[in-house]
Amino acid sequence: MLMEQEIITQAEGRRLLQALQGIHQLAARPGLEDVHMYVEEEVVKATNDRVGGNLHIAKSRNDQVSTAIRMKLRRDLTHLVATIITLQDALLDTASHHLNTVFPGYTHLRPAQPITLAHYLVACVDVLERDVQRMKEAYPRVNQCPMGACALATTSFPISRERVAELLGFDGLLENSVDAVGSRDFLLEVLATVTIFATDISRMVADLIVWNSLEFGLLELPDAFSATSSIMPQKKNPDVLEVVRARMSRIQGRFASVAASLTSLPSTYNMDLQEITPPLWAALHEAEASTKILAELYPELRVSGRPLEKAGYAFTTATELANTLTRKYGVPFRAAHKAVGAVIKALVEHDGASRDISTGLLEAAVKENADLALQIQQQDIEDALNPTRFVAAHHVRGGPAPREVTRMLKTRRRRLRSSRQWVDRKSAAQSDAEERLDRESTAHEAV
Amino acid sequence: MLMEQEIITQAEGRRLLQALQGIHQLAARPGLEDVHMYVEEEVVKATNDRVGGNLHIAKSRNDQVSTAIRMKLRRDLTHLVATIITLQDALLDTASHHLNTVFPGYTHLRPAQPITLAHYLVACVDVLERDVQRMKEAYPRVNQCPMGACALATTSFPISRERVAELLGFDGLLENSVDAVGSRDFLLEVLATVTIFATDISRMVADLIVWNSLEFGLLELPDAFSATSSIMPQKKNPDVLEVVRARMSRIQGRFASVAASLTSLPSTYNMDLQEITPPLWAALHEAEASTKILAELYPELRVSGRPLEKAGYAFTTATELANTLTRKYGVPFRAAHKAVGAVIKALVEHDGASRDISTGLLEAAVKENADLALQIQQQDIEDALNPTRFVAAHHVRGGPAPREVTRMLKTRRRRLRSSRQWVDRKSAAQSDAEERLDRESTAHEAV
Amino acid sequence: MLMEQEIITQAEGRRLLQALQGIHQLAARPGLEDVHMYVEEEVVKATNDRVGGNLHIAKSRNDQVSTAIRMKLRRDLTHLVATIITLQDALLDTASHHLNTVFPGYTHLRPAQPITLAHYLVACVDVLERDVQRMKEAYPRVNQCPMGACALATTSFPISRERVAELLGFDGLLENSVDAVGSRDFLLEVLATVTIFATDISRMVADLIVWNSLEFGLLELPDAFSATSSIMPQKKNPDVLEVVRARMSRIQGRFASVAASLTSLPSTYNMDLQEITPPLWAALHEAEASTKILAELYPELRVSGRPLEKAGYAFTTATELANTLTRKYGVPFRAAHKAVGAVIKALVEHDGASRDISTGLLEAAVKENADLALQIQQQDIEDALNPTRFVAAHHVRGGPAPREVTRMLKTRRRRLRSSRQWVDRKSAAQSDAEERLDRESTAHEAV
Amino acid sequence: MLMEQEIITQAEGRRLLQALQGIHQLAARPGLEDVHMYVEEEVVKATNDRVGGNLHIAKSRNDQVSTAIRMKLRRDLTHLVATIITLQDALLDTASHHLNTVFPGYTHLRPAQPITLAHYLVACVDVLERDVQRMKEAYPRVNQCPMGACALATTSFPISRERVAELLGFDGLLENSVDAVGSRDFLLEVLATVTIFATDISRMVADLIVWNSLEFGLLELPDAFSATSSIMPQKKNPDVLEVVRARMSRIQGRFASVAASLTSLPSTYNMDLQEITPPLWAALHEAEASTKILAELYPELRVSGRPLEKAGYAFTTATELANTLTRKYGVPFRAAHKAVGAVIKALVEHDGASRDISTGLLEAAVKENADLALQIQQQDIEDALNPTRFVAAHHVRGGPAPREVTRMLKTRRRRLRSSRQWVDRKSAAQSDAEERLDRESTAHEAV
Repeated sequence: MLMEQEIITQAEGRRLLQALQGIHQLAARPGLEDVHMYVEEEVVKATNDRVGGNLHIAKSRNDQVSTAIRMKLRRDLTHLVATIITLQDALLDTASHHLNTVFPGYTHLRPAQPITLAHYLVACVDVLERDVQRMKEAYPRVNQCPMGACALATTSFPISRERVAELLGFDGLLENSVDAVGSRDFLLEVLATVTIFATDISRMVADLIVWNSLEFGLLELPDAFSATSSIMPQKKNPDVLEVVRARMSRIQGRFASVAASLTSLPSTYNMDLQEITPPLWAALHEAEASTKILAELYPELRVSGRPLEKAGYAFTTATELANTLTRKYGVPFRAAHKAVGAVIKALVEHDGASRDISTGLLEAAVKENADLALQIQQQDIEDALNPTRFVAAHHVRGGPAPREVTRMLKTRRRRLRSSRQWVDRKSAAQSDAEERLDRESTAHEAV
Repeated sequence: MLMEQEIITQAEGRRLLQALQGIHQLAARPGLEDVHMYVEEEVVKATNDRVGGNLHIAKSRNDQVSTAIRMKLRRDLTHLVATIITLQDALLDTASHHLNTVFPGYTHLRPAQPITLAHYLVACVDVLERDVQRMKEAYPRVNQCPMGACALATTSFPISRERVAELLGFDGLLENSVDAVGSRDFLLEVLATVTIFATDISRMVADLIVWNSLEFGLLELPDAFSATSSIMPQKKNPDVLEVVRARMSRIQGRFASVAASLTSLPSTYNMDLQEITPPLWAALHEAEASTKILAELYPELRVSGRPLEKAGYAFTTATELANTLTRKYGVPFRAAHKAVGAVIKALVEHDGASRDISTGLLEAAVKENADLALQIQQQDIEDALNPTRFVAAHHVRGGPAPREVTRMLKTRRRRLRSSRQWVDRKSAAQSDAEERLDRESTAHEAV
Repeated sequence: MLMEQEIITQAEGRRLLQALQGIHQLAARPGLEDVHMYVEEEVVKATNDRVGGNLHIAKSRNDQVSTAIRMKLRRDLTHLVATIITLQDALLDTASHHLNTVFPGYTHLRPAQPITLAHYLVACVDVLERDVQRMKEAYPRVNQCPMGACALATTSFPISRERVAELLGFDGLLENSVDAVGSRDFLLEVLATVTIFATDISRMVADLIVWNSLEFGLLELPDAFSATSSIMPQKKNPDVLEVVRARMSRIQGRFASVAASLTSLPSTYNMDLQEITPPLWAALHEAEASTKILAELYPELRVSGRPLEKAGYAFTTATELANTLTRKYGVPFRAAHKAVGAVIKALVEHDGASRDISTGLLEAAVKENADLALQIQQQDIEDALNPTRFVAAHHVRGGPAPREVTRMLKTRRRRLRSSRQWVDRKSAAQSDAEERLDRESTAHEAV
Repeated sequence: MLMEQEIITQAEGRRLLQALQGIHQLAARPGLEDVHMYVEEEVVKATNDRVGGNLHIAKSRNDQVSTAIRMKLRRDLTHLVATIITLQDALLDTASHHLNTVFPGYTHLRPAQPITLAHYLVACVDVLERDVQRMKEAYPRVNQCPMGACALATTSFPISRERVAELLGFDGLLENSVDAVGSRDFLLEVLATVTIFATDISRMVADLIVWNSLEFGLLELPDAFSATSSIMPQKKNPDVLEVVRARMSRIQGRFASVAASLTSLPSTYNMDLQEITPPLWAALHEAEASTKILAELYPELRVSGRPLEKAGYAFTTATELANTLTRKYGVPFRAAHKAVGAVIKALVEHDGASRDISTGLLEAAVKENADLALQIQQQDIEDALNPTRFVAAHHVRGGPAPREVTRMLKTRRRRLRSSRQWVDRKSAAQSDAEERLDRESTAHEAV
């Protein structure tokens, strides 16, 4: 850019570019202030005071640092999104094998109504989809170029900030120079998206740990993801999931660190800004590593037994019996629920099961609660209480019925494709920018 | 919707709608479980067991609660955005009066280079613009309808979730029913955007408090925003700004509360979710109230004196002198900076000022540092060191030069108009939905 | 004090005291700056400008505010400690009924080894004991008197700060006046102790929620603490515990708020300090209310069935069988564990139970793993695998054996008595101070 | 202990001890589960399956891990306390040179009343003293021995937990075995004390950064602690202090990480506990490193000029003039303050200084505000307004008068000596324990 704008001559520019290309690795040296000074020294060595001495025209560490963070961050963020997509993909694959795996749906950690495992897994995909959306939306705010802001007031050299932004593959300029060097809301925003993602993951992991417990016994972790004990074979500790859970909590602290650092900080550049990038990189790394683990774990989960056949879950279909009374026999909703509730209460007190709900019992309860004399068919009772039928009957949009979940799987796959295209586009743009910069530098050198 | 789908009859529906319209205020009663039960009871009273007993068909507290939070939140969020726009507007207005108010630009809380007050204020507008963007982008994730998810597994009644979403003014469905009742990432996301906004505001406020100090003496707070002391008239305490600063810190804690609550929480509904809305409302209220105060305060700020004429700021233009040596006299950048640095160092040690920089001194320094024998013109030195000229010379994109800031003001005003249109559209959509719902209910009643 | 030091006359002092005693309640009035001004105005009204005008000699809002916070905080903190003691007491009482209730001990949420419910409850008491200790240790740092520090530099009047501290019931002076008006570490410390307590409680509550689940079925919540559903009698939602859990998380955010507010705050008084007391009071209130609930809940817990007889827990005593091989038969520890492990692994693979461990199987495994030919007695196997014997055999200090837990209960009861004495002493000191102040004021008035 | 209790034979014990002494460094090997397994393998290699196989009698990773953390933590905590003492010492030394350095005392970042630099520095020492107290009080809760708790239920071997605790230099036992393996409140408590310390330090650092600004110009940072700019000699950036400030904020996040991890964690051991020690060590390291820097920095601070002679500070002694009217001339306090306030207000409006307060002006103001006709002596006015006299007159306990600060310095030095003795005692106890353990091991070997 300096050459194009004729701020330095073509000859100078070529020599600077050659010298910069010649630096392949950093050698830490005592007494060296920082990497910027190191590069300048190397360039001066490779050229001379006159040429190398112009390297820092229209630049400052303040704008360079913010630019470098953004260039690394856009890559890391793209990688994280790609990894989350892999996890979503794994969840969809797993779901496609469990469309008919009837599974207890919980509220308050108590079995509430039957769903399917696929239905639950699609919910997880949808949660992660919003995480991906947030990260995608943060991206354009990350990918703005601060270069040319210099220390904080731009420069009196006739630079083209647009050209630098273009050469570095940015989507645009962080225009106002005071804003450009001092703002780090882009960094806090990315951390916020990662923190929200972390709480989402921690809830998914909490489900797995509980369902994997001996007592719930709904899911079995693959051996590779659990630690066994030589003495207690019943003990398959969910070590990996516990570590993931803890890492997710740690990310919360990283957000708190950075938010506390930025609070009341004077505008523009302060050295504090140097200290807030390590928590950012750490959080991104923890998130990505944990996501990778889960992407491998979900497809290996084994469903243990037929959970809905356990006695305890018998009454999770009770609402459907009440609905049947309303829909088919015209009992008002509230009265139907009271009637079914009364029947179940009586049964529970005598250790009865759902198969003990007879037409007689139910008719009496309806009579008492709704003052209606009905003739209820036994088949209606059985149908209503059958978990598989329950699930099939819940086929409104977003419900657990296999055909509805199948439809949802299809739309999610489409969305994943579009997310993957986003990742590909961003990765390509990042690599293209690097290559183009290289090419243009080489072209200039070659002249 | 229940009528349209023929789940209840037209007659029942009309009576239910009439009964609901008749409830004008809530009367807390002992023994009442919650507001949902209260409404049902009232409706039953106004109709009968048969009709009123069908009010809760295809509904659950779980989906209703999430729906209600989202309906309130979309309004509150729109209000907050509107208030931030008002603050941005106030900043732009203030900026337009200070295009030529040369002002010290700081890094590390030390004067670095001259900018203008307008330039700084535009930076604040840009920071807030990204806050507004984040809130706008969060909006569509808030404005999704969970209704019909019921307890967590939808319902076997043939409801139309799309119709309910439309009637309630939502942009779409929160489709998967497990996701619909249990996810609160939308809430944490809004809190995150408010928390990022809070750190931004706390930095702006920190600037004002320091600049308003007796020692900096750059700005004077309007009397209405400072507490004076009957005995110490020199004491105009920035009480209001201190309270705003503290409230912004408090918002960080509200985010931490909610993030901690959601961590490891089992999926779907748990009572914990009831406890995370108060911090949300509180944070939104604190943010909005503080923003309103600042929108009134900025236009009343008085710039005290001509800050850049103070002795201490004399050398903030030194970089420009070095740039002049490079640009006009061909001294390599690094050598030029060293030469100017050497001159200033000598002057500072003898309590000299920038006006003591003579051509002789400078020529000698260039000779020593760059081994160049120059004939420097006194006028070039004076021009370079003049803060007003400094500012004018920094006219690259995003720089402090008045004409560049004027251009930036114009583009920001355009953006504000577009933001205001967004607010108007959202507010209108919210009100339209309410009115339409009312109208359709009344139409049904009227039949 | 002003009278005693002859800063004001006896006559003036008496009239001031009378006027102050005459203020019984605050009437908010528009235009009133704060409560300090209100009191002064009332006193002036009740006396005159001359007498009332001397009320504020050697005082400032800065030292008064800090003093008032400390006086309220020492009471609230004492109440919280008293409430925690009540909870400890409830836990000990409950424990005393469950000395022989063999219960699965968990690690990684997987059954590990048998303990007793009493053993677990004593662990909770010990955790809370350290919380109490921390609060007790914070107390003397709270109960220091800042009065006389005035605005920040004390006063030139010959006051006796010691006498004021004594009259207000403080343990000592917060001596340095700059420290006295500006430091709030005492407040952050109390919040820290409450936050640590909150994480402790949240772990105890997490245990209860999981153990109360249908699947774990170890404990049953009393009806008063769970929400039942009219339609699903199997559903006893642990609403109260969930709310307590969420409140404990909220306290974390309150600590974060205050810590963020104090960060980088200039020394001495700033208005931010006014904003950090509401989170303190809220946290104390939330902690105390939740503790009260738990103190009522624990004694009502019902243990459901005989958990250790469930098949899944069969092997939790396996380590004891290995220990027996080492202790009685001289098999090296590691080899003994391997041998038992091998036996169990084989059984688990064929759905065997612990009663299937025969002398033959075990002898073969020992031969293979330790190359030892043993004659093992069947009784030794049965004894080792019996959970009740397991518990009884673990009678080293701190172990689950009933006689050891009985001993521990005794020492904890003693400690509780000592804690209760601490509470009584502090409460008495607080009340005594108030009464003495009243008495001395009245005595002065009476003269 | 195992030998003493005759759980293993003397011969076995000797060979185990020899083998353990022979392990000098860890060599990471792929496939190795953890350090515990490594040690056992090495011991088996150095002995045989029979002897080495008994190494793990009556131990578990669960109690060993908690023990190891506590042994490292007690050392690190002692080091941190020692470092804080060094900082306190540096502050006292610095204070002793500034007993008469009159300095503006601030509230709300506005000059309020004169104090001395020594007075301020003693306040810092007192703040840190409470930090030291908290750490000292946390120490005995850290230094409790969990060994013998094994997995969570102790052991059936007749171990002596007391003897192990003694040999490892612990103050006592963490008695209840469930508590022993699963509680980490000691860790969160230490982090809390470090976090409170961090907010204290961040306030001290904030003072220095502001006072070091060009505009406040009260203090000058030593060159070694500031970054200069080659081009802007006026720019001495407080880089080191900014980094310290940011690190202190980071510590807040570390507390948040650990608190979030512990929230709702099931009792006893979970792998999450492994993830919460890195934030602990990091926080301790950051705190200690920053403290060391400050201990070197304070003594090198240079006071720039005679701050109280600047015009802006003229009226900081105004309260004393009012006090003089009350004390010497009998004007009621409130009226005196109003009178002085009126005089100053008039002067400020006409750019007057405090030396313009004449007897006439003051007498007129007293007449108007208190309706008293006084004859005020000019000397009284001058004495009251003189900052040095102001400071000297504020000699009540804790005040800025040099003689009072001298007294305070003396008592603080005494306290430091006592703190140092604490450090020495703890360090000695830690080393003694190590040596004794070594000695006893060697003695056993030698037999």
